[in-house]
Amino acid sequence: MQRFKLTIEYDGRPYVGMQAQANGDSVQGALEAAIKAYTQVDTRIAAAGRTDAGVHAKAMVVHADIARDDSADTVMDALNAHLRPNPIAVLQAELAREDFHARFSCTGRSYGYQIIMRRGGLTFDRGLAWRVPHPLDVDAMQRAAGHLVGKHDFTTFRHVQCQAKSPIKTLDRLDLEGHGDRVWIYADARSFLHSQVRSMVGCLAMVGKGQWSPADMKRALDARDRSALGLNAPPEGLYFLKAHYEAD
Amino acid sequence: MQRFKLTIEYDGRPYVGMQAQANGDSVQGALEAAIKAYTQVDTRIAAAGRTDAGVHAKAMVVHADIARDDSADTVMDALNAHLRPNPIAVLQAELAREDFHARFSCTGRSYGYQIIMRRGGLTFDRGLAWRVPHPLDVDAMQRAAGHLVGKHDFTTFRHVQCQAKSPIKTLDRLDLEGHGDRVWIYADARSFLHSQVRSMVGCLAMVGKGQWSPADMKRALDARDRSALGLNAPPEGLYFLKAHYEAD
Repeated sequence: MQRFKLTIEYDGRPYVGMQAQANGDSVQGALEAAIKAYTQVDTRIAAAGRTDAGVHAKAMVVHADIARDDSADTVMDALNAHLRPNPIAVLQAELAREDFHARFSCTGRSYGYQIIMRRGGLTFDRGLAWRVPHPLDVDAMQRAAGHLVGKHDFTTFRHVQCQAKSPIKTLDRLDLEGHGDRVWIYADARSFLHSQVRSMVGCLAMVGKGQWSPADMKRALDARDRSALGLNAPPEGLYFLKAHYEAD
Repeated sequence: MQRFKLTIEYDGRPYVGMQAQANGDSVQGALEAAIKAYTQVDTRIAAAGRTDAGVHAKAMVVHADIARDDSADTVMDALNAHLRPNPIAVLQAELAREDFHARFSCTGRSYGYQIIMRRGGLTFDRGLAWRVPHPLDVDAMQRAAGHLVGKHDFTTFRHVQCQAKSPIKTLDRLDLEGHGDRVWIYADARSFLHSQVRSMVGCLAMVGKGQWSPADMKRALDARDRSALGLNAPPEGLYFLKAHYEAD
């Protein structure tokens, strides 16, 4: 038995989420089925983050104990072969220490959120970005984002079903980058509350549209009340970008 | 009646091609249906280029005579509304002269071809790129491409069903750009033979893989014989990028 750290990319469109659930196909389910097909052994994986239905990952990290003595490259190729035709790819497989845990060893998570500003419908990016049919004031959004960086009670930006013990989190980064008709929003933290990124993005979009001032973002944060939330951004623009570990 | 020049983007995955055909849904069919829904008038469009099944466009140009006195912005928004849920978007609508013809006025076409080099399956880009499971030697491919630039008899790179009167074309540009695991191949010409870009790309990939030398590309060109073709690249990597007009 060897423990592997697997870096995977997935298109979240067909899935109920990263985590296995009774109500549909999950990324975890597809990956565990591929491991079973390869090793003939029932295996549970653990992931650095949970992503909701329709949320994507460019580099999610999971660990799995593989009941084969194969090399990391062989494991990667075998899993990729068994994953087809799922839109899930193992980008990297590395032999890990026995005590490595994709979730509990993780010291930081990075998310990205893609907005496309255009009047026409999306084509290549349908389900892969949030389309906003009007221009957004990215400078105002960046000023509003500044109010959220740091250690705060993020109750306003927390899903009602969030199971975290405390609403206090430290947001290390919340930056915007505009490229033509696209805006990417980058968020880094040790961990996030459920829906925190989408809730922050939804309020940033209200600022971008001019419905909120940057100061309204601070008022929403200070309210510590879910009902102060302006808008929850849809899942399709959200990407899990990176899991950080001490060894990195 | 006003003639409009429309710049459209489409995801070719669900279509038999740009041009209306009896055997399935086409981009032309979807666009003509949207115009009919908007104007109540049967209208035929003409396009700068024909694209095969599964081929995409980032900026195809078509013209259409619109039986409404609306502004260009209104025409664009109306067509986009009627195009949903097709993965086709009107990016720009401009009032054109009565003698403007998207195909016959076009003085140059630009295509791009996207290859992704990776061992795992594609996720976000499935159907939007050609996956090659091994690295490609982009420098060798660029040297091979140099043999094709200029005025030549491209019979080797011509589909057997090509209806062009002459196999002689002038290729103005054939350049490669590598970005990480992606290679983009850019081809410009006044016009191309049927399957010319995909045929050139397929042979470039053989060079990139080391199965052909750059000099083999010249031998294939000089053979003026379709049976000298190394490989026809699949449609999913091909994008119509730009149509050039005198007024541009």
